[in-house]
Amino acid sequence: MALIVQKYGGSSVGTIDRIRNVARRLIETRNAGNRVVAVVSAMSGITDKLIGMAHEVMDNPPERELDMLMATGEQQSIALLCMAITEMGYKARSFTGRQAGIFTYGSHTRGRIRSIDASAVTKALEDGCICVCAGFQGVNNEGSIQTLGRGGSDLSAIALASAVKADLCQIYTDVDGVYTCDPRVVKDARKIPVISYDEMLEMASSGSKVMQARSVEFAKKFGVVFEVRNSMNNNPGTIVQEETSAMESLVIRGVSIERNQARVTVSDITAPVAYTAIILSALAEAEINVDMIVANTAHDGRARQSFTMNMNDLGAAQAALKKLLPQFGEGAKLETEAGLAKLSVVGVGMRSNPGVAATLFRSLADAGIATGMIATSEIRITTTVEAADIEQAARVVHEAFNLDKAQA
Amino acid sequence: MALIVQKYGGSSVGTIDRIRNVARRLIETRNAGNRVVAVVSAMSGITDKLIGMAHEVMDNPPERELDMLMATGEQQSIALLCMAITEMGYKARSFTGRQAGIFTYGSHTRGRIRSIDASAVTKALEDGCICVCAGFQGVNNEGSIQTLGRGGSDLSAIALASAVKADLCQIYTDVDGVYTCDPRVVKDARKIPVISYDEMLEMASSGSKVMQARSVEFAKKFGVVFEVRNSMNNNPGTIVQEETSAMESLVIRGVSIERNQARVTVSDITAPVAYTAIILSALAEAEINVDMIVANTAHDGRARQSFTMNMNDLGAAQAALKKLLPQFGEGAKLETEAGLAKLSVVGVGMRSNPGVAATLFRSLADAGIATGMIATSEIRITTTVEAADIEQAARVVHEAFNLDKAQA
Repeated sequence: MALIVQKYGGSSVGTIDRIRNVARRLIETRNAGNRVVAVVSAMSGITDKLIGMAHEVMDNPPERELDMLMATGEQQSIALLCMAITEMGYKARSFTGRQAGIFTYGSHTRGRIRSIDASAVTKALEDGCICVCAGFQGVNNEGSIQTLGRGGSDLSAIALASAVKADLCQIYTDVDGVYTCDPRVVKDARKIPVISYDEMLEMASSGSKVMQARSVEFAKKFGVVFEVRNSMNNNPGTIVQEETSAMESLVIRGVSIERNQARVTVSDITAPVAYTAIILSALAEAEINVDMIVANTAHDGRARQSFTMNMNDLGAAQAALKKLLPQFGEGAKLETEAGLAKLSVVGVGMRSNPGVAATLFRSLADAGIATGMIATSEIRITTTVEAADIEQAARVVHEAFNLDKAQA
Repeated sequence: MALIVQKYGGSSVGTIDRIRNVARRLIETRNAGNRVVAVVSAMSGITDKLIGMAHEVMDNPPERELDMLMATGEQQSIALLCMAITEMGYKARSFTGRQAGIFTYGSHTRGRIRSIDASAVTKALEDGCICVCAGFQGVNNEGSIQTLGRGGSDLSAIALASAVKADLCQIYTDVDGVYTCDPRVVKDARKIPVISYDEMLEMASSGSKVMQARSVEFAKKFGVVFEVRNSMNNNPGTIVQEETSAMESLVIRGVSIERNQARVTVSDITAPVAYTAIILSALAEAEINVDMIVANTAHDGRARQSFTMNMNDLGAAQAALKKLLPQFGEGAKLETEAGLAKLSVVGVGMRSNPGVAATLFRSLADAGIATGMIATSEIRITTTVEAADIEQAARVVHEAFNLDKAQA
């Protein structure tokens, strides 16, 4: 008898009928001989409605109270889902974050999971219940309710799966799994049957937002195997797990793209030595997430440093850096370029398969697509291209690495 | 510096504007030099909406899950009220029933308060916060959320007032206080400035439903002085407290009326001896609340027993008792009478002032109003009258006891 954790997002429990549908899926899983723990989000739209009420009261509501308010969304879904399961003749028991033993720390509205005491959930499983836990929430040392920020319910599910020692954790969403590329862009894109944590992380960080990176990181840290599946069908999804040696046989797992990128360059820097620290601190202070960082020095000794960021942050970045220019010596300049996109190829196979970069840039060059900044990790190569070129770029790279063929 | 607990019902926090109004009142109380604890209900309509969703899922939702669902109503009000207080520049902190240390026992949806650990609330008061607690909810030994049933928020307020050793507990409602009679019926009815717990209990049990009896009982048991006030104005309300000797100077505190009453009589009972127990058990099993009980025996030895109850229960009572008739000996009969009302006079003064009953029945007789069943307690006399007579009866009795004159 396996123990399975299933997570359902807000759209999966968005109406009473959909809640019944989830109840049926949980019962099917149970009737297949498993013990079942569900983790659910608030009914879609509820969280936004609650935040709207809060903003009707004040512009910047205190975050502790915002958490208190938002947590009611999941509390309602778990109660309604338990009722639906009961109506179908099965035992169910709901758990708020606190009742599920999810202890948190950090800031309100973006808490982190400190530990889980799953004893109450385990006991209810032993009593034959389908356990239904509120995602997205926990309780901190002071006994205050904390929510976990974006993607928090995925994190709750993976953390609970780890705590109850689940055999499998299924993350139900509105797509069939992780694809070799965005199917809206590359029509030959295929669902990836198995992917490693690191590949999943690199896909996420380079634009394929099936899940937040921190949930994948948590799963990796605690060795939780999970599967991304579609709540509207019974198709097998994508299993995310530790890397295996078999995974290296494939050079590239997928191509991920991200639009709305901008580049900022500070050039002709002659002083001081710590200019990188100064620039990055100023951007961090302005709460700008910098992505790619490329730096080099010309033969005349003048340094040049470029960053990519989301286009929405470009104005703030310009403002923050303009003030600093005088510190960088006479003639230091600030250049910006909007209208960019990023393309990444990801795969653990590139560690043992030389020539990935050559194949990537050859395919783009053959298609007449100019590349800009380049950044690499051990299992990812990223390049910027003009925004207008990104779809064609994705298609030629996808084909160059034979991603339209079946994977192992 | 006094410590004041203020309870606001659902209509007082029914909209964001009203929540702001409550925030202002709490801040005024604080600025008058007091420490303040608020206890609030769900925004009006929310609880019904949640119950409606539950019934959309199933007819008889499990009560533990119903509690889980309903408790979100108060949790939303406390968060929004704290935001409104914060917006006005004051420190506030919200507490769910569990966080306020309200421990419960008994059945779900009608829990009882076992104990209160108010240390978290006390600490927040010391930190200078206005504390905002969810009424109507607590947590049981298993860690499950329990709601306290009808009037539960009043009970939460009085219990918290006891636990934090408040100097005063104010129950805000939509009336100015407790009246000598229903002002819609008797236009000369006056607000009662001070009333004893026992009088308040007798008024409640005989139809004046300003508060549920169990909240008053709790206040009496723990000596919590409370005041019933109107949340829409600043008029002084009715203070409910221990009886004082001064209270006895007034013969009658008030007249209370209750409509929709019915009478059931089992007559010509010849056997067995335990007929009263059999009848009352049958009615209890059918979940019928019996109010007045009158029994006597005719000179031929045939017993006769009458009860009053709410008219809505009449059909069920008939059905339950009809089956029993054969047990009561040959010729036992069941009679019913609908269309009745009850009138009660209540006052601790009747203990030391003889002749109250005489004045009561003389005034009714002079007005040509026939009385039916009569029941008495130490501080109350109740009689049934025809429903059509109840308003006139209330007026003549109110006048006979000079209740239109100012009270001590």
